[in-house]
Amino acid sequence: MPTPAFAKSIATVSLSGTLPEKLEAAATIGFDGVEIFESDLLTFDGSPADVRRIAEGLGLAITLFQPFRDFEAMPDPIRARNLDRAERKFDVMEALGTDLVLVCSNVQPHAIDDPARAAADLAEMADRAQRRGLRVGYEALAWGRHVKRWRQAWDIVQRADHPALGLIVDSFHTLALDDEFSGIAALPGEKIFFVQLADAPKLSMDVLSWSRHFRNFPGQGQLPVTPFLKAVLDSGYSGPLSLEIFNDEFRAAPARLTALDGLRSLIHAEAEAGYGPGLPEPPVCDGVEFLEFAVDDAARASLAALLVQLGFRHAGHHRSKAVDLYRRGGVNLVLNSEEDSAASEHFQMHGPSVCAMAFRVDDAQRAMARAEALKCLSWRERVGAGERRIPALRAPDGTLIYLVNDDPAGDDPAGRSIWQDDFHMLPGDETDNGASGALTGIDHVAQALPFGRLDSFVLFYRAVFGFLPDSLWELPDPYGLIRSRALVSPGATAGRGVRLPLNISESRRTATGRFVGATAGAGVHHIAFSSPDIGPLVEAGLAAGVPFLPIPANYYDDLAVKHPLDDDALAALKQRELLYDRDEEGEFLHAYTDSFSDRFFFEVVERRGGYRQFGAVNASVRMAVQAQLREDRWPERYLD
Amino acid sequence: MPTPAFAKSIATVSLSGTLPEKLEAAATIGFDGVEIFESDLLTFDGSPADVRRIAEGLGLAITLFQPFRDFEAMPDPIRARNLDRAERKFDVMEALGTDLVLVCSNVQPHAIDDPARAAADLAEMADRAQRRGLRVGYEALAWGRHVKRWRQAWDIVQRADHPALGLIVDSFHTLALDDEFSGIAALPGEKIFFVQLADAPKLSMDVLSWSRHFRNFPGQGQLPVTPFLKAVLDSGYSGPLSLEIFNDEFRAAPARLTALDGLRSLIHAEAEAGYGPGLPEPPVCDGVEFLEFAVDDAARASLAALLVQLGFRHAGHHRSKAVDLYRRGGVNLVLNSEEDSAASEHFQMHGPSVCAMAFRVDDAQRAMARAEALKCLSWRERVGAGERRIPALRAPDGTLIYLVNDDPAGDDPAGRSIWQDDFHMLPGDETDNGASGALTGIDHVAQALPFGRLDSFVLFYRAVFGFLPDSLWELPDPYGLIRSRALVSPGATAGRGVRLPLNISESRRTATGRFVGATAGAGVHHIAFSSPDIGPLVEAGLAAGVPFLPIPANYYDDLAVKHPLDDDALAALKQRELLYDRDEEGEFLHAYTDSFSDRFFFEVVERRGGYRQFGAVNASVRMAVQAQLREDRWPERYLD
Repeated sequence: MPTPAFAKSIATVSLSGTLPEKLEAAATIGFDGVEIFESDLLTFDGSPADVRRIAEGLGLAITLFQPFRDFEAMPDPIRARNLDRAERKFDVMEALGTDLVLVCSNVQPHAIDDPARAAADLAEMADRAQRRGLRVGYEALAWGRHVKRWRQAWDIVQRADHPALGLIVDSFHTLALDDEFSGIAALPGEKIFFVQLADAPKLSMDVLSWSRHFRNFPGQGQLPVTPFLKAVLDSGYSGPLSLEIFNDEFRAAPARLTALDGLRSLIHAEAEAGYGPGLPEPPVCDGVEFLEFAVDDAARASLAALLVQLGFRHAGHHRSKAVDLYRRGGVNLVLNSEEDSAASEHFQMHGPSVCAMAFRVDDAQRAMARAEALKCLSWRERVGAGERRIPALRAPDGTLIYLVNDDPAGDDPAGRSIWQDDFHMLPGDETDNGASGALTGIDHVAQALPFGRLDSFVLFYRAVFGFLPDSLWELPDPYGLIRSRALVSPGATAGRGVRLPLNISESRRTATGRFVGATAGAGVHHIAFSSPDIGPLVEAGLAAGVPFLPIPANYYDDLAVKHPLDDDALAALKQRELLYDRDEEGEFLHAYTDSFSDRFFFEVVERRGGYRQFGAVNASVRMAVQAQLREDRWPERYLD
Repeated sequence: MPTPAFAKSIATVSLSGTLPEKLEAAATIGFDGVEIFESDLLTFDGSPADVRRIAEGLGLAITLFQPFRDFEAMPDPIRARNLDRAERKFDVMEALGTDLVLVCSNVQPHAIDDPARAAADLAEMADRAQRRGLRVGYEALAWGRHVKRWRQAWDIVQRADHPALGLIVDSFHTLALDDEFSGIAALPGEKIFFVQLADAPKLSMDVLSWSRHFRNFPGQGQLPVTPFLKAVLDSGYSGPLSLEIFNDEFRAAPARLTALDGLRSLIHAEAEAGYGPGLPEPPVCDGVEFLEFAVDDAARASLAALLVQLGFRHAGHHRSKAVDLYRRGGVNLVLNSEEDSAASEHFQMHGPSVCAMAFRVDDAQRAMARAEALKCLSWRERVGAGERRIPALRAPDGTLIYLVNDDPAGDDPAGRSIWQDDFHMLPGDETDNGASGALTGIDHVAQALPFGRLDSFVLFYRAVFGFLPDSLWELPDPYGLIRSRALVSPGATAGRGVRLPLNISESRRTATGRFVGATAGAGVHHIAFSSPDIGPLVEAGLAAGVPFLPIPANYYDDLAVKHPLDDDALAALKQRELLYDRDEEGEFLHAYTDSFSDRFFFEVVERRGGYRQFGAVNASVRMAVQAQLREDRWPERYLD
């Protein structure tokens, strides 16, 4: 049942920049409030009252001041000092205009292990706070000296039994310890003063380092943040939902990009928990309807030549624009060389590259409504008379994503496809030529992302489209490690669904790193076509001059040792330079082309049985061969 | 007692690039051999015999082929297959021309926990190897299914009792488990077939991830690699010393730089273990005698003006070159604007920056001999008639390090200082002006390093100069995290010794990241002068117009809460905009200037008592204020 939206807040430590920059970014993106992290205040050259004025001017509430450390259950000379310390920080809070301070559980070795003592100290602090109209929230740090879990903190809050003292819960501290959280739902909601949300990848390291460097936004990691949030909201909690993220990459990223991801993550988490105004259901994505390449005349000619070698034919041209359709079987590739268009802008920034993807969905309008509720930018292309306007939104790197209804009647009452509407279709065989194999569709579209942007894209595809993140792979390029995670539409099978491997490289010397540098961050790095019978397809391609990568003989010698392949099967692979993988569910055969203009390349894949992966074990062979070919073309001395 | 040098080897996985690039880098730097890592062979477009020919042409032995995984103690159908698999790899070894294969302990869940069975299998494999003139080395992986420790592997080797089967030990696998290693010294040396060396920082994470991403060269990490090596050599082992490093940064770094560090680390480890031809003792470094700045005429004028504001005087000019000496108390700064010199080259590449440091040492000739034995480049400046040639070597970033004898008689029979020899000294007071405080010397010189280069510099200063690495600090710049580790000469005290904080930034948006970008990697980022009485010194500087950083009032409000400072002490700090820190051993007062040409800046520090740190807690204040000042000068819209 829909409820009003909860206020959305973010801790200043989650964003990069000076304090005014952080406040401005949070407000611009649409947050309602901020937690002021003390170190941001200490380094700010203005008074706490100045911070209050800036925040008020931006329409931001200051939801919390934090952290107040190592307060409770200290031996006596320190106890008195700590109460003085609290009064000084209350002065700051009054000037900031916030009524709530976060006290996190004591980590000092000389803290006393006595909940009654902790409760008495916190009651005293709360009493002093109450006299000034302020409140104290107590939170269990996962690495606290004695108090590590929310139940311990809640026990102390209950013992203290003071109206100005409440509990603060933080998803990271609870979920990092794999602690039980359903009990939070049974707490009185008004005694939960604040909730902080953070996700994280599952890492086997000490909790403190994990917390300080690897937290991320809900939906970017692997912790059950949504069920945690549901338990908190089931209690009747009515305060803000606030993000507190310590992350090395967020510290370096532009603040507005981070803030946008943060707000998207909160809107998504709130809806997933079953609260707030709700979101339209995510689309059911059946596949990739087309990919659009931004090209100039020269790149169009050479790309078209390569596509023809790959068995594509020129199937149509746009009614009013310099846009051509190449088609083979279920694969549509659009080459856009129209001047003064979004594609030409893309070409000028990024060179020949994919400027748009189109997903086939069950309901494009509902998908757009969900995307807009999740703060995506929609986009409207100019269209000629009688032409179709295809709903589109922008991915985080600016790539356009068109949404095409699976059933043409969803777009057009007459049930005409976008191709019939907007293109002069050229006569020719619409079905694939089975004699040279066949292409049934686009198996996957791999993107190279700038370092530090993986989490942002994972959240985008997960929240907006409901895609599921695969496990993280590490692929050794000869010049550095590539990290790869695929987002896959639910229920994808061979030939159906959308699969988007996302790759990042810390090194700028890898193919992925060079691609990001050369294209100023444009995304699509390679496009894989699916075939039910790759052998004849690759054979015909080789005969037509497709530059499929030559695979080293050593690879096949090792393959024979690794897998129970008979000599004929091995010879068939070797002859066609096919790469091979298998798992418990099936087999995978694939071949890559050399790269086009050192930008993107094509792959052909055949999935047998239930194989769901992407042949990651063979990526190092592909990258080494591509590096060697590139070096043969451009010797190292011209490259560095 | 000196012994002949052991052969030096490196595993191809430790270096970036294609296999031929790796071999060429190892040979060029001076390795005697390489371990061929199988994945490098599989991705190489040539036969194993081609690899042998390339290696022979480069004068490299192939010391080992690896890894052969999951061999021993498998249930029976797999056992037979594994022996077939071994024969296929023996074929490869024969073609490669290496006689030794590394079998690492089985990690498979269905491996049988039976040392006798493992011994029988390895004996069978060794028997087959022996028939072909080959040998098998067995190594315990720290994450092996049943065999994790060298004693278990040794027990299996003893049970097998086969002349073609021996033990392989790896420092990482033993030290990562904190396993006892002194017992290795008691093994028969000829049964240790191979030793692999790797260090690592101490990290609290699972051993497999730690091993795969964070190993580094001996002396770059925190494991007791030298005592481990000593135990191995005490056994009578006489094979190669070989490096096997899995490290994300090494995968991305130019192969020759990595190889140079590797060879340096092996020479150093061998000598520290008390074997090989030995090295001259490291120098005793008393302090920094001078710093030299590369400037043009304009930068010389503005830098000189700043130095005069800081209380320096123009104390001399070089007899034959456009080089000026500025001096205050124990601090000598040299401004070099000579055309066609090393300094002018440095200026052209890096802009106004420190191009040389001079350390005062007990014996410059011995220090140079040690540096050269550790593969450092020495450097000879052209000198005029009667001028002194100061021995110099290059740091890994190309910065010159001059070595000046502490006792001038070490350089010059007449006992004249370098200043007397090469400079026209200008008349004036050589002692500091106590009225405005005093400078006693250079407290520390901080360097900004390109990301991924920290380990390289740590090894250089540790091996060549015997400096000790401090703990690692994380400093939050507003635009990303800085990681900082200081190298300190043994026994450094306030006013004596050499301290070199080394800083890296993954983000290019931080001051450190921008510095590395703007200077194309030149090192010195800030220079700290030590003063026994910082108060009057900073007061005089402020009056003279030194752009000391303004410190936010919030900082002092918090300081009053954190430390037991009385009101007068606090007011004195605030009035002079001094930063403050204390630990159990003493106090630290310091002030920074704004940056010079957005390049480097100066600091003045006063150490009280035994304080040994660098005020890291205040670095975030410094970086935030510098960022704000920079933004005031160059608003954000002009910067990105």
